[in-house]
Amino acid sequence: MGETPMGRAFTRPERDLVPDDELAVLRELADRVRELTEATVLTAVDSAEAAAVSAEVAALTARLNARRREAPPFNTTGTGRMGRQIGNPVTGLINPIAPPVEVEVGDDGIARAEITLNDAYEGPPTFVHGGVSALILDQVLGMATAAAAGPAVTAGLELRYRRPTPLGVPLRIEGKASRVEGRRVYAGATISDPEGRVTVEATATFVLLGP
Amino acid sequence: MGETPMGRAFTRPERDLVPDDELAVLRELADRVRELTEATVLTAVDSAEAAAVSAEVAALTARLNARRREAPPFNTTGTGRMGRQIGNPVTGLINPIAPPVEVEVGDDGIARAEITLNDAYEGPPTFVHGGVSALILDQVLGMATAAAAGPAVTAGLELRYRRPTPLGVPLRIEGKASRVEGRRVYAGATISDPEGRVTVEATATFVLLGP
Repeated sequence: MGETPMGRAFTRPERDLVPDDELAVLRELADRVRELTEATVLTAVDSAEAAAVSAEVAALTARLNARRREAPPFNTTGTGRMGRQIGNPVTGLINPIAPPVEVEVGDDGIARAEITLNDAYEGPPTFVHGGVSALILDQVLGMATAAAAGPAVTAGLELRYRRPTPLGVPLRIEGKASRVEGRRVYAGATISDPEGRVTVEATATFVLLGP
Repeated sequence: MGETPMGRAFTRPERDLVPDDELAVLRELADRVRELTEATVLTAVDSAEAAAVSAEVAALTARLNARRREAPPFNTTGTGRMGRQIGNPVTGLINPIAPPVEVEVGDDGIARAEITLNDAYEGPPTFVHGGVSALILDQVLGMATAAAAGPAVTAGLELRYRRPTPLGVPLRIEGKASRVEGRRVYAGATISDPEGRVTVEATATFVLLGP
């Protein structure tokens, strides 16, 4: 791979900055939309009621779009750039697509999270979609890498699925950057089930951003 | 990897079956919730209005939950089991998390899709989250594999990120199973930008389900 395309500057986006008090309100809104998302996947109301709710949802969307940003905002107080990306589809507190996974990077350099995934993330019946596991691991690997060496983008990601990952129970995710070589960072991460068995294992290569 | 855990039967879920006319209504509902999701990520309304909308969203969720299924329903007429999984987080028409990616498998065995991703799928500013690309590729690889050899689960997935994948423009995704060896199927897939350049390349190993 040529480094140029992946190494290009992602670094100076102009974004609205949302202070913590506004973030709390937007987070609440996203939590409610998450619940609506799960309800949409599981509802068994009759078609007339579903259609009536659709119309009401459209009206609420119009209210939110009355003032709309050009791009997702950032938060002022999150840790590192990834911590500020509140619109992120894995960790983003204001993004209803994100479970959201709350990642903490310890002094030992290990990025840790615990998450219970609902039916909206289902792949094989009753289990987490393999691609959802990949999505979460990519993010945790990126955050471990950012903590160890600075912001970076994924160049390669390798996943080994050891056993099915269950929905509806707390999963543990851990990731750590193992090695920095020039602009490349190597990292590993796992998802474990409540019995402590690794369900998915990932290794990744990142390319550091910036000059 | 022991094959036993991944090879366990995912094959006989008891699911409600949604006929096409009900599916159309639920699909409409999911489309509206998708728009609400994007609006949630981008809204700049004041906190009072955001809080008011939150409360209304909660009320709509309660209406949908008045009759709630135990698990996501299937559709009766989709192609193959994956085609029937209307709650799937990549292709599922009734899942607001899914973009949704509409995949068609041709007579040549190639699974093809075209999708434009909005700001809710952002990773590096203005680009698709690397994990979202992984999520989509895993699904397309699985569908190409299912078409070639039958339903299967991912055992291994390898991604190479060649250049950033842009948001807001039509992306082309193609996948194909290349080889079947016993219960293992090998497949490859790519995401290409509107200029036809491959942005992400994936290879995967699947394990066939069933007896």
